[in-house]
Amino acid sequence: MDYEAHMYYSDQLESLLVEIVDFFEGTPKVPLNVIEGFPGVGVYGLYHSGDVKMYDGHPASRPMYVGKAVPRGWRQAREPDTDDPQLFIRLQEHSRSIEQAQNLQVQDFSCRFVIMVDAAADLIASVENALIRRYLTLWNTVIDGFGNHDPGSGRYDQAPSEWDIVHPGRPWVANLRDTPPDSSIVERKVRTHIAALLD
Amino acid sequence: MDYEAHMYYSDQLESLLVEIVDFFEGTPKVPLNVIEGFPGVGVYGLYHSGDVKMYDGHPASRPMYVGKAVPRGWRQAREPDTDDPQLFIRLQEHSRSIEQAQNLQVQDFSCRFVIMVDAAADLIASVENALIRRYLTLWNTVIDGFGNHDPGSGRYDQAPSEWDIVHPGRPWVANLRDTPPDSSIVERKVRTHIAALLD
Repeated sequence: MDYEAHMYYSDQLESLLVEIVDFFEGTPKVPLNVIEGFPGVGVYGLYHSGDVKMYDGHPASRPMYVGKAVPRGWRQAREPDTDDPQLFIRLQEHSRSIEQAQNLQVQDFSCRFVIMVDAAADLIASVENALIRRYLTLWNTVIDGFGNHDPGSGRYDQAPSEWDIVHPGRPWVANLRDTPPDSSIVERKVRTHIAALLD
Repeated sequence: MDYEAHMYYSDQLESLLVEIVDFFEGTPKVPLNVIEGFPGVGVYGLYHSGDVKMYDGHPASRPMYVGKAVPRGWRQAREPDTDDPQLFIRLQEHSRSIEQAQNLQVQDFSCRFVIMVDAAADLIASVENALIRRYLTLWNTVIDGFGNHDPGSGRYDQAPSEWDIVHPGRPWVANLRDTPPDSSIVERKVRTHIAALLD
């Protein structure tokens, strides 16, 4: 069987993603706790400039976390409503997680975000991936679980995430019954990662 | 606050996705049960040409299901290995699900697939979305659950999916304990969807 006929290459895409990442880097950084409601879907990065021992040496210019907000019904291919304020909603959820964490301060966080308009919304997942791989964001690639939601009763047979162990405070985490990860192992992974970033 | 500075538009993307969907439609259709191992990641569509009462009138030229296979470690931004045979593995899993279904025949299925090479792998999720919305594939948009895996012990407090109710046979589904959906409701949704497609 000849697989050559199934192979798709794209130079155009590489330049398009570079263009969007550049656009992301050119957007204003906004303090996380002053954002007002706005419509739209897209990608965002959260930046931390606070004093948390575990993150000593982590460059404030590099996002800690990159995420996306896609239109509701996206996966089911209902007519996506790109005016849906999903991006704002997601940023608010993150604000709340940070406020609830005992060792983080929401005023130490700011964000960049890009509202992906019309057809560009199709690229949201790809741009999120490109940003994560570009910045190797700690809360995506090393510490797991920041973006988690309360799984709801009937699904509490899980373990607390790494993020919840090093940033305790989200109230629903207390319901989770499985064995939590070891915080000293998580902290060691963070040290190794930051050292590699600075290399 | 001025959100204009955060808004990204792209004409280039629209034309790029159209180009890839056209490429998809130009790839050879391959019987699902004759595919041999090959490396790569990407997107695929499954086509059904059999005689299943519930699907009467569904055009054989339209895929039933669209899916994707991304490189392992994609989300964690480890160095993705695009030679990883994830696309082949995914097609094999689907073959097995179809073989296990009591009312489907694997020889009635064929597939189109596109191996997304190098940078194009970044577009996999977007292309999958574009294909689903283009074809409004039944097993993505109406009948839920074809792509599910055995959730494993400790997570059997779920309900069988709609797909498993109308295509019973996957052995692990017998372990699921929550109330299954009503097959007559699923079948009615299918009829409505096919009627709308033919409109």
